[in-house]
Amino acid sequence: MIKIALDAMGGDNAPHDIVHGGVEAARHSKGRFEVVLVGDKERIQPEIDRHFRTHDLPISIEHASQSITMEEQPSIALKKKDSSISVAIRLQREKKVHGVISAGNTGAVMAAALFGLGRIEGIRRPAIGSLLPTEAGRTLLLDVGANSDCRPEDLLQFALMGSIYYSHLFGDMSPKIGLLSVGHESVKGNDTTLKANALLQKSSLNFIGNVEGGDILKGKTNVVICDGFVGNIILKFAESLHSLFKVSMGRLVRKYLFSQIGAILMRPTFDGIRKLFDYQEYGGAALLGIKGVCVIAHGRSSTRAIQNSILAAYKMAVEDINSHIRTKLTEYLQDD
Amino acid sequence: MIKIALDAMGGDNAPHDIVHGGVEAARHSKGRFEVVLVGDKERIQPEIDRHFRTHDLPISIEHASQSITMEEQPSIALKKKDSSISVAIRLQREKKVHGVISAGNTGAVMAAALFGLGRIEGIRRPAIGSLLPTEAGRTLLLDVGANSDCRPEDLLQFALMGSIYYSHLFGDMSPKIGLLSVGHESVKGNDTTLKANALLQKSSLNFIGNVEGGDILKGKTNVVICDGFVGNIILKFAESLHSLFKVSMGRLVRKYLFSQIGAILMRPTFDGIRKLFDYQEYGGAALLGIKGVCVIAHGRSSTRAIQNSILAAYKMAVEDINSHIRTKLTEYLQDD
Repeated sequence: MIKIALDAMGGDNAPHDIVHGGVEAARHSKGRFEVVLVGDKERIQPEIDRHFRTHDLPISIEHASQSITMEEQPSIALKKKDSSISVAIRLQREKKVHGVISAGNTGAVMAAALFGLGRIEGIRRPAIGSLLPTEAGRTLLLDVGANSDCRPEDLLQFALMGSIYYSHLFGDMSPKIGLLSVGHESVKGNDTTLKANALLQKSSLNFIGNVEGGDILKGKTNVVICDGFVGNIILKFAESLHSLFKVSMGRLVRKYLFSQIGAILMRPTFDGIRKLFDYQEYGGAALLGIKGVCVIAHGRSSTRAIQNSILAAYKMAVEDINSHIRTKLTEYLQDD
Repeated sequence: MIKIALDAMGGDNAPHDIVHGGVEAARHSKGRFEVVLVGDKERIQPEIDRHFRTHDLPISIEHASQSITMEEQPSIALKKKDSSISVAIRLQREKKVHGVISAGNTGAVMAAALFGLGRIEGIRRPAIGSLLPTEAGRTLLLDVGANSDCRPEDLLQFALMGSIYYSHLFGDMSPKIGLLSVGHESVKGNDTTLKANALLQKSSLNFIGNVEGGDILKGKTNVVICDGFVGNIILKFAESLHSLFKVSMGRLVRKYLFSQIGAILMRPTFDGIRKLFDYQEYGGAALLGIKGVCVIAHGRSSTRAIQNSILAAYKMAVEDINSHIRTKLTEYLQDD
């Protein structure tokens, strides 16, 4: 059975919400996977015991004596060898689990995964891929923060990894790839994207050309490629919309009496909108390009976000996405 | 009296909406400014005549025999010397008008302004500044598209120009400046922003440090600095939200009966939200750093957007923002 290690100590609401998410995922596992909670046994067991009927669930604990705070530097992951994230990664390196999820310190998770598992041969820079809601479904944006400065070749590799990840998540074997830029014409962009555009044109990927900022939410392409600087800014900008919408709506609703009644009647619609813009629904972001499966969940992950992250990690592990990345990469290296 | 030249032939709804905007602005001028419509006299006069009581308004026509389409290359502005945008810029160079507005081809407007008016001495790269709605009011984002690749020194100059522009628009003499990056700590960013952060720290500007993508809409700072690649992507992303919101809302409202009634009651609130996210309300974007006043309005500018752009250009001209930029720049150059 596939085993997924869940860093129970990482994240703003750890271990409470994390363990809760793990328990719920285990409850819906249907024999597909086991959840391995990693962290302080003394704190995790009582959290499990809060829930009903957990004794026959596919869930277990691996003790780790240390934990890493959100404020610590990424390099701490290499020093605190018995931290929950380091232990989770070690379990994967030793093939005792098939994937790792953490809602903890992103830099520390990346450092632990990169040093503990290493990169897939031929991949220069791993990238973080995150799903965004669009008018047409969901779009995978990558990189959203692993690399602030990228070369054109890196963007090509992101496209390759993103294409494979998307096709396995959604069963679309030839996802449309767009390169994020400042104009649709291939002559528009910055130095890096101009060169990346040329590389993507030559590739066998389903590259439809440059996309602009306004195309992302229209869902013009299934995958949108950018460097981690732009991707991180877009992702955080998108996550902040919910708050602007709520604040403005609140102000306006208070102003108009009929709107107050209307707002009550519209509750299900608003819940739907909130859900649409809520990153919690989309689970974590995948760290692509490492020798293993690692899902980085949001620091403020809810129970539901953790559950979705476990499902994403399970899917990556059971479909062995990395072997597909390796195969595709080999084709490219032979073409050169 | 201040004269503002309005390119009547540029934009998706030219000359109809543009002339309408010019007429409305003239109607509310209160003796402050005159609107000079530039373009094909034969097409502009009938558009003016559609409106009531225009004979005593401060509005005039300057004939230009050519126009530039949205699809033409920027360099066309230098060839078509009798195009409406080229004529408008020439009028400003000859000091016959004090500012220019165009909703036409952005590249062509920039080229005409740069070559026709030149840069302010000491400014390496002019930048486009655009206002975004935030939880706390409005934030000026720049550059939103003039320069895809920037040096750290360019970002410092953008901050200087943005600070002066914002303070004259809103009367806040020490606006808070943020540098857009991927973390609040000064050690987070890409090569360019790391160096720009150091330059901004040393400056006399009210620099509060790095801001993240999620801080923009919270209105954490009055001015947000970034290169034109990132700024253009963020701006277009923000403009596209309106559409995602509308599509999703429509889908959900149709699903729930009570929501349909609620939606009717909530119309004033929704109008308010739409207005908030509608770039039309914010007038055009200012091209800062040139020897003159140039406002670039959105291609799909409504009457109202044109009116707001005329007011922005009037304000820049009457308060002589460029002389303030020159003074501040001289202080900096002496400091070096």
